[in-house]
Amino acid sequence: MAFDAIETPFGKSDKIIGGAATYIAWCASNFTQPIKQISVVGGDFPQEELDALTARGVQMEGVQIKKDEKTFFWAGRYHMDMNTRDTLDTQLNVLGNFEPVVPDSYQDCEFLMLGNLVPAVQLSVINQLKNRPKLIVMDTMNFWMETCMEDLEKVIAKVDVLLVNDSEARQLSGQFSLVKAAQTIMEMGPKYLIIKKGEHGALLFHDNQVFFAPALPLEEVFDPTDAGDTFAGGFIGHLAKTKDISFENMKTAIIKGSAMASFCVEKFGTQRLREITNEDIQKRLNDFVQLVNFDIEVG
Amino acid sequence: MAFDAIETPFGKSDKIIGGAATYIAWCASNFTQPIKQISVVGGDFPQEELDALTARGVQMEGVQIKKDEKTFFWAGRYHMDMNTRDTLDTQLNVLGNFEPVVPDSYQDCEFLMLGNLVPAVQLSVINQLKNRPKLIVMDTMNFWMETCMEDLEKVIAKVDVLLVNDSEARQLSGQFSLVKAAQTIMEMGPKYLIIKKGEHGALLFHDNQVFFAPALPLEEVFDPTDAGDTFAGGFIGHLAKTKDISFENMKTAIIKGSAMASFCVEKFGTQRLREITNEDIQKRLNDFVQLVNFDIEVG
Repeated sequence: MAFDAIETPFGKSDKIIGGAATYIAWCASNFTQPIKQISVVGGDFPQEELDALTARGVQMEGVQIKKDEKTFFWAGRYHMDMNTRDTLDTQLNVLGNFEPVVPDSYQDCEFLMLGNLVPAVQLSVINQLKNRPKLIVMDTMNFWMETCMEDLEKVIAKVDVLLVNDSEARQLSGQFSLVKAAQTIMEMGPKYLIIKKGEHGALLFHDNQVFFAPALPLEEVFDPTDAGDTFAGGFIGHLAKTKDISFENMKTAIIKGSAMASFCVEKFGTQRLREITNEDIQKRLNDFVQLVNFDIEVG
Repeated sequence: MAFDAIETPFGKSDKIIGGAATYIAWCASNFTQPIKQISVVGGDFPQEELDALTARGVQMEGVQIKKDEKTFFWAGRYHMDMNTRDTLDTQLNVLGNFEPVVPDSYQDCEFLMLGNLVPAVQLSVINQLKNRPKLIVMDTMNFWMETCMEDLEKVIAKVDVLLVNDSEARQLSGQFSLVKAAQTIMEMGPKYLIIKKGEHGALLFHDNQVFFAPALPLEEVFDPTDAGDTFAGGFIGHLAKTKDISFENMKTAIIKGSAMASFCVEKFGTQRLREITNEDIQKRLNDFVQLVNFDIEVG
């Protein structure tokens, strides 16, 4: 949970509420409640933001509030293509020495979503859980591959589903072909790999199976920040709701994640995620069905 | 119909048979025959290549053979990503002054595929047909946008389906969003627009509808040359076979084009297209169904 300041070719935000855990919680709460949040914020994080999430069924016992410190802050500027960006400022603040604590009331967790963060923190959460969750999903990024690969490999070995983007899949595997990259990464531990390709959709790999979900072509992409976290929130949210971790149901979960991500980019920050209704979501899911639906006779 | 010499990070071809019309004919002949070819070659073009196409039901009356001249030649080198390439050599030869002649026996043409070439040549073929074909599909590229935009606009205004890649759609429309680009381009004439995105699939636009077909994730992409032409050959081949130009059937045609393109890239030149069987095609189509098939309840 963090503050972001975002510039795009189409506008500029003030310091707004961001962070992977924030987006995941806002998104997943459309599908399942309660959500048991683990994070850390400073004394500058608005209480009303925590209250708004609590009202959505997001429990806050695992969120540490360090009154005398400041919340993590990231500022970035997107290029014209909205796929590449420059980091303008990163202030670690409370994340500099974050030691997550899993409350006793979280021990019944069946579906664990590890948002993108330093691998040692992700590992600590896994290790604090007395019973292994039914499904552990992990997001990560290139920065950890470059700075703490050994830790990263330890976490990757313990999870069921890994989420990375296409360039990260190539970096992690040393393979250019995404099919070969997926094979290599699945040998590192995860039985499922999701490769996110932004506006080009997402691929789900498992054994020798592959599923592709497109991104919805949009007239305007206003702010792509945390679209990947929103995708993750929709994915884990659907799985936690249905408690079905089959490959078939993961396909549905990916379509739901893609639909949620398509909302996220329409406005700055979490704004769009806060205002959408279940009717909006159903309508958007129908757009996805229309987008890829075809009839073909295979003889 | 041309000669190519291709270098990729994975190998290098000799001077091999290439050209948009060649790939389109090899591909489309899997779906429909006869195909009535219009092109020009020099005296150096192997007769056995023409005979091989004739044996596939490709008629050669519209192919001019200029005995004392040389066939068009292109040499290029692909970068590691296989999406970008450098042109090493271009020898126009017979294409320098090509004046296509539509034979009388071609006047019954119902489905016209205009491969990528100088727009004036494409326009000449349209103008020589006494009855407008049921469907005109046109491929083009950025080079013509930069060198003869006025001619290009005249042809675009006369066709039903335009094929371009994503950067060309942006260049032609001046719009970054592909959804907006499609709206702008369809106002220039074509009722249908296909935006090819290489390894990221293809989009079909018509009115307010959009359909997305993925590219099959492949372990190896050996030679991407003319994958777009092969796609076009599968698209027009399926439509000509079924004689159904509805949006629904165009979706199927795009999946068939994508399947054929996925074969094309597996070997240098037309080699793979020459050896595949109908059984191979059916199996590949089934891979596409598996790739995008999902069940979702939309309430």
